[in-house]
Amino acid sequence: MSDILSKTIANIQPLDRNSMEKAKARQDTLTKPTGSLGRLEELSVQIAGIQGKPLPQIKNKAVIVMAADHGVATRGTSAYPQEVTAEMVLNFLHGGAGINVISRQVGARVIIVDMGVAVKLESNPDLISRRIAAGTQDMSQGPAMSVIQAEQAVGAGIEIVTAEVKKGLDIVATGDMGIGNTTASSAICAVMTGKTVAEVTGRGTGLDDRQLQQKISIISESIALNRPQSAKPLETLAKVGGFEIGGLAGVILGAAANRIPVVIDGFISGAAALIAAGLCPQSRDYMIAGHCSVEPGHKIILQHLGLKPLLDLEMRLGEGTGAALAVSVAEASVRILDEMATFEEAGVAEKGE
Amino acid sequence: MSDILSKTIANIQPLDRNSMEKAKARQDTLTKPTGSLGRLEELSVQIAGIQGKPLPQIKNKAVIVMAADHGVATRGTSAYPQEVTAEMVLNFLHGGAGINVISRQVGARVIIVDMGVAVKLESNPDLISRRIAAGTQDMSQGPAMSVIQAEQAVGAGIEIVTAEVKKGLDIVATGDMGIGNTTASSAICAVMTGKTVAEVTGRGTGLDDRQLQQKISIISESIALNRPQSAKPLETLAKVGGFEIGGLAGVILGAAANRIPVVIDGFISGAAALIAAGLCPQSRDYMIAGHCSVEPGHKIILQHLGLKPLLDLEMRLGEGTGAALAVSVAEASVRILDEMATFEEAGVAEKGE
Repeated sequence: MSDILSKTIANIQPLDRNSMEKAKARQDTLTKPTGSLGRLEELSVQIAGIQGKPLPQIKNKAVIVMAADHGVATRGTSAYPQEVTAEMVLNFLHGGAGINVISRQVGARVIIVDMGVAVKLESNPDLISRRIAAGTQDMSQGPAMSVIQAEQAVGAGIEIVTAEVKKGLDIVATGDMGIGNTTASSAICAVMTGKTVAEVTGRGTGLDDRQLQQKISIISESIALNRPQSAKPLETLAKVGGFEIGGLAGVILGAAANRIPVVIDGFISGAAALIAAGLCPQSRDYMIAGHCSVEPGHKIILQHLGLKPLLDLEMRLGEGTGAALAVSVAEASVRILDEMATFEEAGVAEKGE
Repeated sequence: MSDILSKTIANIQPLDRNSMEKAKARQDTLTKPTGSLGRLEELSVQIAGIQGKPLPQIKNKAVIVMAADHGVATRGTSAYPQEVTAEMVLNFLHGGAGINVISRQVGARVIIVDMGVAVKLESNPDLISRRIAAGTQDMSQGPAMSVIQAEQAVGAGIEIVTAEVKKGLDIVATGDMGIGNTTASSAICAVMTGKTVAEVTGRGTGLDDRQLQQKISIISESIALNRPQSAKPLETLAKVGGFEIGGLAGVILGAAANRIPVVIDGFISGAAALIAAGLCPQSRDYMIAGHCSVEPGHKIILQHLGLKPLLDLEMRLGEGTGAALAVSVAEASVRILDEMATFEEAGVAEKGE
């Protein structure tokens, strides 16, 4: 394991129970029936524990969108051609994608990272280039990447989120772009959760029945050939993963090490979360499941990680769109804790008085 | 039926199919797989049809919170004493309640209306006073109000939302405050949906098992005594409803008549929606279900109205809190329609190219 990765994992501490107890105690004094704000109350308590503050704050928000290509996409596992990955990165840079719109609304900055897009992108001050290679190798023919490349990808994610922490960061959302990346994510999901490939594989951007069966076959072949094991998450990432998935696993671990809540987007971010939790089970406490994707494997990931999604809007775009929307729910939860009046302050009678 | 009510109902038109088709067609050109933004796409199309614009806008947002008291509350159907209604109105005016916090976050103005609070409130420039009476009569002893009062309540809601439309309004959320109002709402729900009282009655602000059984008995007695009928929604409102529930039914009808989307909050707003839909079935198309409340009758209302909630965060506070949170989802949906780049604009290859 690389130095940065082992140091980061060593820095991931349990949540701060003292801040959580204080946040919970304050929730119970606010002018509402106890528990009546449901998951908003729980969420504020979790964020208190993550940030280590009885009154957590969410002001500086970021979405980190990582893009990369997948060798296996050449086998027709996606409804879209591979050049769309690069085209969509340009769309992100121009502010025209779904994640740009939602991030503007929730007041989050968008960090765009080239983790290994097949088409070489022109340098751009708004694009962070951490290219590991021009896309992964075809995992149905051998490992998608080397273990060293997997470590590089995770390390890049840690460095990127740590740099954002230095600029000011109270919450971060994960996002992805990569034609073919539901194929890699399904493989990771099957390995890490022990479910069958058929259970965890969906239609991605829109496959028909025949294409879905082909996708399942290719994933099964890839797993049979590479023999990834759930106990070895870095090797699993190397064998059947992707550069953006490794990068996002790094973002999650780096966020946890810095006590920053990390809102997990859909299926691809969920695969990254499986790798992160495999490397450091404690990191799960820092995760907030932004939404539940239509992609069938996503529910399985959430169950496996013990996470309950905040939103269920039948979304399946990726890019961090579901997570970014959920950032505003997280923000509402901490503002409620901070800004609502207590029964005493407001002079409101309590229950049964 | 009063003049203002019949005129308002006559002004509620079908959604604008032309704008909806154009919105749908534009969704399918935006840089994402078709349908991948799920319910956000559907919602933008509905709002296009409501506003009668292919590119709807949500800039001016308001939450209308209506407060009133309930005679039946003196029979111990709530965990809180009746004076809390007035105390919470003051909390709204001071900006310390849950609805104030969430409204600040989503950028919605809060309109607070005294529809008939038992304790007389001092006049305040931020409080709209449309008091029908100092709380309703105890519905377990006779009708909660007269039919004329019911018409006055609905008329007040129409006038208040229409005044807001003149100030500029693109979306409105409904909210309530009234100790005892889950009791009235359960009665309305049982009558209008045909379900049993036991099925639609919950613990409100926090009743224990014995208190819940007592609440069910009181509601059953009230219905047996007053004999409200689903075919007569105004009479049902008069017999077992509340002033704030009538006012909110008016807000819903007035919003629909002005082609403004109306986000319905939880159980009490849902009871108002049942009255509104009973008076004018067409008004349902203008409703957006903000969230699903913990209160068991709320799911039954949503099913009855054919509405699917946007959020499910185990909330049961009322005040419009769930609806206000959902306003930001609605805003995201129309911003996506407006601001996302098309495949052509962004130079992104389409599916199967």
